[in-house]
Amino acid sequence: MRGFDVIEVRADLEENNDRNAALVRERLLREGVCLINLMASPGAGKTSVLCRVIDALKGKYSIGVMEADMDADVDAHTVAAHGAATVQLHTGTSCHMDAKMTLRGLDAFGRPLPDVIFLENVGNLVCPAEFDVGADWKLMILSVPEGDDKPLKYPLMFTVCDCMLVNKIDTAPIFDFDLSRCEQHVRALNPKIDIFPVSAKTGEGMDAFIRRLEERIGAALQKKRGESSQ
Amino acid sequence: MRGFDVIEVRADLEENNDRNAALVRERLLREGVCLINLMASPGAGKTSVLCRVIDALKGKYSIGVMEADMDADVDAHTVAAHGAATVQLHTGTSCHMDAKMTLRGLDAFGRPLPDVIFLENVGNLVCPAEFDVGADWKLMILSVPEGDDKPLKYPLMFTVCDCMLVNKIDTAPIFDFDLSRCEQHVRALNPKIDIFPVSAKTGEGMDAFIRRLEERIGAALQKKRGESSQ
Repeated sequence: MRGFDVIEVRADLEENNDRNAALVRERLLREGVCLINLMASPGAGKTSVLCRVIDALKGKYSIGVMEADMDADVDAHTVAAHGAATVQLHTGTSCHMDAKMTLRGLDAFGRPLPDVIFLENVGNLVCPAEFDVGADWKLMILSVPEGDDKPLKYPLMFTVCDCMLVNKIDTAPIFDFDLSRCEQHVRALNPKIDIFPVSAKTGEGMDAFIRRLEERIGAALQKKRGESSQ
Repeated sequence: MRGFDVIEVRADLEENNDRNAALVRERLLREGVCLINLMASPGAGKTSVLCRVIDALKGKYSIGVMEADMDADVDAHTVAAHGAATVQLHTGTSCHMDAKMTLRGLDAFGRPLPDVIFLENVGNLVCPAEFDVGADWKLMILSVPEGDDKPLKYPLMFTVCDCMLVNKIDTAPIFDFDLSRCEQHVRALNPKIDIFPVSAKTGEGMDAFIRRLEERIGAALQKKRGESSQ
């Protein structure tokens, strides 16, 4: 048994993404769910970070993960084994998730929806930044081996996100990665962004990030449950 | 003085990319030029590899580089300093180079064109694989920190390329990267692909790759110069 559904989703350029993102927000509000859009380059550590997060939060919230991949189910198996309700979305040639695909992912969880749903977007530092999926929080990961100059070259992703993890921070000396230079580049684009250096492998820095994440989840759920009961 | 031109290029979805790719091929044939499309995730080491290649080949061929970036000119400065004729293409929100943008890049070099032109595509393991730019050789880089499972998750890129470099191979023990497992995944998609483990940082493996590259360049130029003189 696989333990999760696999849904084929495809980009539909005729769709109005902003309208669909509004539908996602309405549904999250109505059902009291917090959605987090997790974006990064291939291999930056999205799945490893998610496993740490699931382990830390699973006693407190019911947790769902939408795994968006062009193909393959390897990450879905990994997060399902950590105890998250998991949906695998296959995007085919589409290089990003859009709001309509996100609606289909929400449908696949069944009722009631998990309290917190993480959308692990397609590994891509470009296109996912352009598509609003209706999430409460946009979280990105930059990994140290990618280099501290990446905010200069892929500015949109760093501009739209609420929080950035600098993962694989344990390898900073090997890659001559300058964290303060990186932070400077990012804050020039996005002064309000939260930045946490972490290592999903060693666990370094994860506690501080998870405290911040819990604050955000708590605030989003409280607000939604307040508004939807009025 | 910057030492290179900056051209604003944008994706035009009305264009017929295959027709434009044929125009690129005609022009490369007519002018006896070899074009290499270099693709990889952000931070995999495209520019570092290119600098090694320019240093090795610059006595033998005139070399051009088209740097495709959403924004910024950092890599163009780097390759221009190594002695390549350089053109910076800004793709804005476009996540890939297409054939029409490539034609504009060729125009920007002036006459005669360099013998060998490297197109350093936008850092993205997804979209550039879908767009034929008319190149003689498709070269990709996977870097060790991205993980040996990436061929499973981004299969199109590994399927369409003629050659793959596994860069940052000096860090394989740190990232538990299994080269033979990676090769097995890639060859299941693309049995004919050339694979070279290298480190652009230490130089390890670069000689073998550059020998292969020179064979390919030599064959492409000989063929074109033969055909165009008939």
